[in-house]
Amino acid sequence: MLDYPLLAALAAVVREGGFDRAAAVLGVTPSAVSQRIRALEERVGATLVVRSQPPVPTEAGARLCAHVERVRLLESELADLPALAGPEEGPATLRVAVNADSLGSWFLPAAARFSAATGALLDLVLEDEEHTAARLRTGEVLAAVTADPTPVTGCRTRALGALRYVASASPAFLARHFPEGVNPTALARAPVLRFDRKDGLQARWVRQTIGHELKAPTHWVPSTQGFLDASLAGLGWALNPLPLAAGHLAAGRLAELVPGRPLDVPLHWQHARLGARLLEALTREVAAEARRRLVMTA
Amino acid sequence: MLDYPLLAALAAVVREGGFDRAAAVLGVTPSAVSQRIRALEERVGATLVVRSQPPVPTEAGARLCAHVERVRLLESELADLPALAGPEEGPATLRVAVNADSLGSWFLPAAARFSAATGALLDLVLEDEEHTAARLRTGEVLAAVTADPTPVTGCRTRALGALRYVASASPAFLARHFPEGVNPTALARAPVLRFDRKDGLQARWVRQTIGHELKAPTHWVPSTQGFLDASLAGLGWALNPLPLAAGHLAAGRLAELVPGRPLDVPLHWQHARLGARLLEALTREVAAEARRRLVMTA
Repeated sequence: MLDYPLLAALAAVVREGGFDRAAAVLGVTPSAVSQRIRALEERVGATLVVRSQPPVPTEAGARLCAHVERVRLLESELADLPALAGPEEGPATLRVAVNADSLGSWFLPAAARFSAATGALLDLVLEDEEHTAARLRTGEVLAAVTADPTPVTGCRTRALGALRYVASASPAFLARHFPEGVNPTALARAPVLRFDRKDGLQARWVRQTIGHELKAPTHWVPSTQGFLDASLAGLGWALNPLPLAAGHLAAGRLAELVPGRPLDVPLHWQHARLGARLLEALTREVAAEARRRLVMTA
Repeated sequence: MLDYPLLAALAAVVREGGFDRAAAVLGVTPSAVSQRIRALEERVGATLVVRSQPPVPTEAGARLCAHVERVRLLESELADLPALAGPEEGPATLRVAVNADSLGSWFLPAAARFSAATGALLDLVLEDEEHTAARLRTGEVLAAVTADPTPVTGCRTRALGALRYVASASPAFLARHFPEGVNPTALARAPVLRFDRKDGLQARWVRQTIGHELKAPTHWVPSTQGFLDASLAGLGWALNPLPLAAGHLAAGRLAELVPGRPLDVPLHWQHARLGARLLEALTREVAAEARRRLVMTA
């Protein structure tokens, strides 16, 4: 077996972002933490954590941290044998990647129910589509809500339904920029919002709805709620998640550019095949919330 | 003078995230864009953009892009001489760094008023406290809303007031975890939210209000609105920006852990000393919105 007190020190330094804080969590001195990590590095024969502020794990260090989290998750299956746990053991933490629009619009009630029922903690990280598959493969995250359906080795994928987006803006913005309706000329002049360089949703909606390539003055707003607030304030038009926009549409603070033409983005839940009950409990809550808030696709 | 058609091609590739999209914006072929960038690289004698997906500027490339944006901003001062502008010239874009809680709670109405009055576009990027000063110095961003008051060479700093945070949770969470009020024992057991590893606000509030070092089970939720939603859903307690929490406090969906004990975080507006009217107009709107939504400190 590996030397788990040494591994736990490494995981604590990375998770807490510092040697002093790791020491406080582990209930030992900072120099004991340093010694444990040096001992581990001597055995492995490689640097495991770069001593920066905050400390950053090397690739080997990150793999060991991911291993520790998986072992702790499996240990949580033995919670009916409480005498086994050491005095300093806290609840297990599940690291889960979630795309920004899901985190900002529907995911959290599922997280709260899961945590209330199990006592487990969640470490939510924003999904970066380009890296989520790699992080699932190495076990750095145990599960992910993602728009990327690419199957990942060692993971199970289940369709969650689609997040519905509506092309929307404030009524004043629509009156100013689209007095004669939504046509290519007006779309070329009306400011549009984009989340970041990878956000192609607005262009996709224009292609699908108007059959035209969008080329328009662009405001960049890298926040789901900021996107909605910018739409409400009349900065531009944008595709907003329907769970966030619905109340504003009903109250007349937002209006659709072309009523009844939403865009659906299918989402997936990918999780490690670990058979751990905590992960199964989280999967159940995520699927239940998705049934309520997402749109079922054929 | 530098060769601005070449520089504009470089800036478009970086801003649009691709050679094809830059070509569409400039109204030339993708191979013309490639040729211009190669010509510029030959003159400079260095690679300016790494041909990845999306293309990433080198340090020299980023400095040239920042220069192009500044020149375009100064050009916008000449907008009363419209015959000077080329046919493909769009409005100027100002790149501004904003900390996540400001972007999610008060900044956007100022942005919308500025844009409606001037027609200028905004490229908002999330502030990373460790890098904002460097990005201001190189001119990569023209201005920043930041909690970091460190003066930056070539920039003017003005105090905006403080963003007020309230330690808050759902009433059900308070009843479950703090039945006898907020004391060190209960705080050590009640799950707390943290935005990321750098977020020390919750610990600072506990130190200030209870005189105790916070060490508690932690959920990590890296989103301003997600933080609020997680508090509402009962995942944990957290320091939420008052502009977002006020309505929920009034309606009884959130309650303060210790009533009347907020925490104020002073914010600053740092901007390039460029004397450009657009930047002055944005500064006025940001200061006006700050007076309405932030707390004036002594």
